[in-house]
Amino acid sequence: MTIQRVGVGPRMSNAVVHGDTVYLAGQVADSTAKDVKGQTAEVLAKIEAALSSVGSDKTKILSATIYLSNIGSFADMNSVWDGWVSQGNTPARTTVEARLAAPGYLVEITVTAAK
Amino acid sequence: MTIQRVGVGPRMSNAVVHGDTVYLAGQVADSTAKDVKGQTAEVLAKIEAALSSVGSDKTKILSATIYLSNIGSFADMNSVWDGWVSQGNTPARTTVEARLAAPGYLVEITVTAAK
Amino acid sequence: MTIQRVGVGPRMSNAVVHGDTVYLAGQVADSTAKDVKGQTAEVLAKIEAALSSVGSDKTKILSATIYLSNIGSFADMNSVWDGWVSQGNTPARTTVEARLAAPGYLVEITVTAAK
Repeated sequence: MTIQRVGVGPRMSNAVVHGDTVYLAGQVADSTAKDVKGQTAEVLAKIEAALSSVGSDKTKILSATIYLSNIGSFADMNSVWDGWVSQGNTPARTTVEARLAAPGYLVEITVTAAK
Repeated sequence: MTIQRVGVGPRMSNAVVHGDTVYLAGQVADSTAKDVKGQTAEVLAKIEAALSSVGSDKTKILSATIYLSNIGSFADMNSVWDGWVSQGNTPARTTVEARLAAPGYLVEITVTAAK
Repeated sequence: MTIQRVGVGPRMSNAVVHGDTVYLAGQVADSTAKDVKGQTAEVLAKIEAALSSVGSDKTKILSATIYLSNIGSFADMNSVWDGWVSQGNTPARTTVEARLAAPGYLVEITVTAAK
């Protein structure tokens, strides 16, 4: 199977396609001044853009892992997620708390999708 | 490749099958009064049920990520895991500590399997 | 699709190959006296060995999840990672903080690769 890499940097690629499966890098917000709802919305928009860059979209997400810097923001994150995710096409999902690479990051989401 | 979703809710699906690969949602215990051994047993039973719902079983698990709310329960979790996992067919596994979505959750396990 | 397991133990396997996709167990250093740079170098060497055991190599890594026991070691880990990863073939990557199975483990890395 072929491997296609998009957004290839010296440390990581933003999306890697192996055959019919898409692996995205963990997405975080650029605007760390936003609250968790704002950062979640930005992260989900970045996921849509990354999926689009390889010919996929949010109806084809297979699995998602959500890392929250404070699990107390679970409800706020979900309020944005629930309005964004494709109804009838929801992925397998796992959500845990974890400190993220920079203190301002409140949420990071990693997804696997079908092409 | 086809995508099949089982246990489709408005927030996530319990299992997603892409071609020959199965992605399960992170499984947690319903009975949060149980200790970590009891919760692990319940989580593993839920994994078996979810795999069965898509025609897979525990001999076909490819990878597992185990999140413990307290890594000090590593030995207790393993005592249940070791008796459950299919000998000769053990998956690639990663175990880390993470606070989970509700305070009563002591363990969450996410698996990928072959169909 | 076929399933091949390598380094099969009673608790986990070191590598599992499903069709053309390789899942590795989370790799940690044997030498926990080393600092995070030393442990990262050892972990990456173990990943190369595990990939080699199934006919893959670091140019084919699709995704990586990096767990640091202290996210403050992000720059030190990256200094080793950046010199190791195959330029032009960097994977999708996620890095979070998590306490690991033993207190001496400073970094654990889980990768998925193409065969």
